[in-house]
Amino acid sequence: MSKPKLTERSHGLAVFPNPAPERDYTIRHVAPEFTSRCPQTGQPDFGTVTIEYIPEKLCVELKTLKFYLQAFREQGIFYEAITNRILDELVDALAPRWLRVETDWRPRGGMSSVITAEYRARGKRSER
Amino acid sequence: MSKPKLTERSHGLAVFPNPAPERDYTIRHVAPEFTSRCPQTGQPDFGTVTIEYIPEKLCVELKTLKFYLQAFREQGIFYEAITNRILDELVDALAPRWLRVETDWRPRGGMSSVITAEYRARGKRSER
Amino acid sequence: MSKPKLTERSHGLAVFPNPAPERDYTIRHVAPEFTSRCPQTGQPDFGTVTIEYIPEKLCVELKTLKFYLQAFREQGIFYEAITNRILDELVDALAPRWLRVETDWRPRGGMSSVITAEYRARGKRSER
Amino acid sequence: MSKPKLTERSHGLAVFPNPAPERDYTIRHVAPEFTSRCPQTGQPDFGTVTIEYIPEKLCVELKTLKFYLQAFREQGIFYEAITNRILDELVDALAPRWLRVETDWRPRGGMSSVITAEYRARGKRSER
Amino acid sequence: MSKPKLTERSHGLAVFPNPAPERDYTIRHVAPEFTSRCPQTGQPDFGTVTIEYIPEKLCVELKTLKFYLQAFREQGIFYEAITNRILDELVDALAPRWLRVETDWRPRGGMSSVITAEYRARGKRSER
Amino acid sequence: MSKPKLTERSHGLAVFPNPAPERDYTIRHVAPEFTSRCPQTGQPDFGTVTIEYIPEKLCVELKTLKFYLQAFREQGIFYEAITNRILDELVDALAPRWLRVETDWRPRGGMSSVITAEYRARGKRSER
Amino acid sequence: MSKPKLTERSHGLAVFPNPAPERDYTIRHVAPEFTSRCPQTGQPDFGTVTIEYIPEKLCVELKTLKFYLQAFREQGIFYEAITNRILDELVDALAPRWLRVETDWRPRGGMSSVITAEYRARGKRSER
Amino acid sequence: MSKPKLTERSHGLAVFPNPAPERDYTIRHVAPEFTSRCPQTGQPDFGTVTIEYIPEKLCVELKTLKFYLQAFREQGIFYEAITNRILDELVDALAPRWLRVETDWRPRGGMSSVITAEYRARGKRSER
Amino acid sequence: MSKPKLTERSHGLAVFPNPAPERDYTIRHVAPEFTSRCPQTGQPDFGTVTIEYIPEKLCVELKTLKFYLQAFREQGIFYEAITNRILDELVDALAPRWLRVETDWRPRGGMSSVITAEYRARGKRSER
Amino acid sequence: MSKPKLTERSHGLAVFPNPAPERDYTIRHVAPEFTSRCPQTGQPDFGTVTIEYIPEKLCVELKTLKFYLQAFREQGIFYEAITNRILDELVDALAPRWLRVETDWRPRGGMSSVITAEYRARGKRSER
Repeated sequence: MSKPKLTERSHGLAVFPNPAPERDYTIRHVAPEFTSRCPQTGQPDFGTVTIEYIPEKLCVELKTLKFYLQAFREQGIFYEAITNRILDELVDALAPRWLRVETDWRPRGGMSSVITAEYRARGKRSER
Repeated sequence: MSKPKLTERSHGLAVFPNPAPERDYTIRHVAPEFTSRCPQTGQPDFGTVTIEYIPEKLCVELKTLKFYLQAFREQGIFYEAITNRILDELVDALAPRWLRVETDWRPRGGMSSVITAEYRARGKRSER
Repeated sequence: MSKPKLTERSHGLAVFPNPAPERDYTIRHVAPEFTSRCPQTGQPDFGTVTIEYIPEKLCVELKTLKFYLQAFREQGIFYEAITNRILDELVDALAPRWLRVETDWRPRGGMSSVITAEYRARGKRSER
Repeated sequence: MSKPKLTERSHGLAVFPNPAPERDYTIRHVAPEFTSRCPQTGQPDFGTVTIEYIPEKLCVELKTLKFYLQAFREQGIFYEAITNRILDELVDALAPRWLRVETDWRPRGGMSSVITAEYRARGKRSER
Repeated sequence: MSKPKLTERSHGLAVFPNPAPERDYTIRHVAPEFTSRCPQTGQPDFGTVTIEYIPEKLCVELKTLKFYLQAFREQGIFYEAITNRILDELVDALAPRWLRVETDWRPRGGMSSVITAEYRARGKRSER
Repeated sequence: MSKPKLTERSHGLAVFPNPAPERDYTIRHVAPEFTSRCPQTGQPDFGTVTIEYIPEKLCVELKTLKFYLQAFREQGIFYEAITNRILDELVDALAPRWLRVETDWRPRGGMSSVITAEYRARGKRSER
Repeated sequence: MSKPKLTERSHGLAVFPNPAPERDYTIRHVAPEFTSRCPQTGQPDFGTVTIEYIPEKLCVELKTLKFYLQAFREQGIFYEAITNRILDELVDALAPRWLRVETDWRPRGGMSSVITAEYRARGKRSER
Repeated sequence: MSKPKLTERSHGLAVFPNPAPERDYTIRHVAPEFTSRCPQTGQPDFGTVTIEYIPEKLCVELKTLKFYLQAFREQGIFYEAITNRILDELVDALAPRWLRVETDWRPRGGMSSVITAEYRARGKRSER
Repeated sequence: MSKPKLTERSHGLAVFPNPAPERDYTIRHVAPEFTSRCPQTGQPDFGTVTIEYIPEKLCVELKTLKFYLQAFREQGIFYEAITNRILDELVDALAPRWLRVETDWRPRGGMSSVITAEYRARGKRSER
Repeated sequence: MSKPKLTERSHGLAVFPNPAPERDYTIRHVAPEFTSRCPQTGQPDFGTVTIEYIPEKLCVELKTLKFYLQAFREQGIFYEAITNRILDELVDALAPRWLRVETDWRPRGGMSSVITAEYRARGKRSER
């Protein structure tokens, strides 16, 4: 049982070397315990954040990913902005071949919302 | 926590600037509390309205979208007409890259119905 | 609240003008209360009939569609024949761009069955 | 109520004429009461057999299909072999445009299994 | 009831001859009783391993597959590494036309994870 | 394999001797393929009939129970009346220790309905 | 097919004679298309109303029950008050042996609510 | 890891000593792979057998319970008789404080059935 | 549409007069967006809080109940303590006839937890 | 945020003082990641362990409960014995007013099993 070596990257995210860089494969993390605040009312929002990616050289470590997502707890930010910001910051830290962020929000005003954004590295086809 | 700036558009819908116009991404709002009236019998109809779109420059604000959908409460209009009208009016207000409206209606005469219409801006491929 | 104008077509089906002939969009009606008879044994069969179509100039009115489906109640007819006949008769009445009929039958002899047939007007691609 | 004319084919399967040979359409029969025996241990296996096909000239009659599947009750045969054998024998009896067999087996040794095989007549594209 | 002949391959896996090498068909085994250990904390991880493949000349026997998966019980290994290792070792033992491994893990730190990797033999298209 | 001896009783129902009259035990038959007609509109109604009973000397045979329920197909009768009539007629035919009838109807006017009536022989406690 | 005789009672509700007054039995109507307004904000509320009762001499007719519930569409009234008012008015119109009203409301402010009130005539035990 | 000592009892059932005879506790085994034959038609029946009991001195071993249930595979026997016979034979082999057998059968003639019988030793209250 | 009169009580909770104090009836509010912190690790916990009560003279207003539950967002407190504290504070503010609090927590260390506490006023029987 | 004081008890279990000893309330922990070994075959078993109790003076801390359950990982023990042993050891460590253990096991030989045992302190009624 050898511990993989972790390296710190931007936004407090730790990474470890992709154990199979020779192939495209997908990693999906589902975080149903996400909360932030509505920038208009200051009221808490609750949602599920799903992150799926094809790693290039780096995989994200789960514990720092958890802390990264927890850091939005007191931030006031719209659904659309938060989704694109998580996408940008994870692409920044992981430099993946492909990455998608989906945020699924509990009802507000009787309506629930889902935002989905994806990134693909130059020259890569979409995963789906 | 900075409040995004809202602008009023047609049909009472408020919008705010798309925070990530550099990429195609999808926004879906699901409104299961929709009601209108049957134009033949005057009886209430009940359904779920799902709106999904890829924004160009504008995103729709949730509260005015709720009021927009509530305004159908006493209107007498067929399923097919209501679906296409919501599509036309949202395209008018948001000028999106792509937009789809699905209305899913509770049973009448033992039959339930689903109507799905979509718009895509010139030169855009369908989202699905 | 203006009542749309209904016109009678073949097989007792009433139609009204398609409110959005300028675009392809889909209409789905699900009728879970269908019954007919097995032509071999005379025993009742029970199933769900799903009709989905892209209208050209005409949309089918729900009440006459209900009566049309009820008319099979005492007919003895195999699953395969009934599905194709509903397809042919709706195409005859509606002249749609595309139409699909699915019939989903409760178990007989321990086996359930689903039959799916579709029509597309000349020059149209399949909807799915 | 006219009874369709049945004809006996190979493997005890009766068939009747396809009522709509002018179009491709699919017929699916789901049989959740299938049992055979493990050739290694002699122990009973239990599964669901799903048969889906596009008929050419012939459709299979349900009662003889039930008897055909019951005939495996005491046979010792691996999942992979049984799936391909049902596929071969149904293609032999029906000469369909396309046919697929899926067998879905209850857990053995903590693992459940699904085997899926399909046939398409020369010059036909796959159904999915 | 003739027992198929088993042959031992690498990693303790037994195989038997593909009963239908003339066609591409898929075999899926779902093992919801998988457990290994986290290499960082030594704590047990629990997940479901799904293996799907198109056989070339060999099919894997279920009992030795069960023992193969049980052998990870005390190993300390990250989700990403374990998924790719199972993929590599099964490809090594079976030389399939195509093979995919999916591992679906119970929540850790409030997040669940799914890793999916696939192999295709040279000149084969992806199965999906 | 000895065939149990059937005896005809009222309402076309066949019965066979209770194989365990020395104990109270329950028998439940669920018939989801029930249809009758609304006495006000003549329109078909669809529902599920559940019959549960503790036999005294007689058990009802399944095939004649099926025919008994099919005989309501063209009758115009309210939910409440049909439920009590099935209860009375089964009690008449079976003379059970206890019997309950539940009818569960598909939506009409947006509302679904469930009617439940039970009988207990003199001196018996309710089953639930 | 004889039409039961309807009588008008208070609150616009029509009734017909209980076909089995000699026994206690339950009737349940589930109306998932209920809407009223919040008295504080004027905003629409949406919920499901379930009415269950043991009739004495009268059963409520379904169509007038539908109209009775529709009459709340523009009324501003709290969940607690509406539930007790429906209970009181149905008891007034039906004089049942026992009656229960449950209202189940869609989320407001992230919280959903269920209110349940019941009436039993003097000398009757509760149904549950 | 000490193997518990097994003893053979009637009907091929092996038992081991109840590890906690000082208290009442329940053991439930659910066998969804049961099959027998209809004594009228000879056709296979399929169902789920659930056995729940409070042991006195003996617990039934799982493997011989499996073989016991498999022995019904070619027997022609009505639902009601099979349920009471399993109850009698298990009570005979285990002498439990309380035991219940439930058999839940797949649809025949459009109807599914559930039979439930229980035994309690003299002086014991029912478990439920 | 008359607004009910709200009165402020302890813990920031507003109340309004029970509209039906003459009968026992239950009010249930389900709040799936609850979050607090673990007092040992400082990590966020997430759960669903369900409050059910029989009012005496007062009903709790929904908006202030929402704010009351939000106030736990940064508090470090064990599941058991939080459940009993909500119970005590609501009893303090509402003086109900009966009240129950259930908290249902997302998995930690692979285990999920549910805590249920109830209060009944002197001389009242439990609601269940 | 004050950390509750933990005390070590038997079997490695840590406890903290019951925050509400003045009332009976229930605590339920559900552990779906339990594994042990079959004493006959040495093969791994997998199940879900549910522990529910009414505390007297002590509540069990979650982390040491997790370690306690993990300690069964390599033990060979029958379902019935393991359930009663967990019950006995938790009663030993917590001295609760009432405690119940349920173990729910994945299928072996096609059968799944559930064992349920409970303890109540002298003079306490059962919780259900």
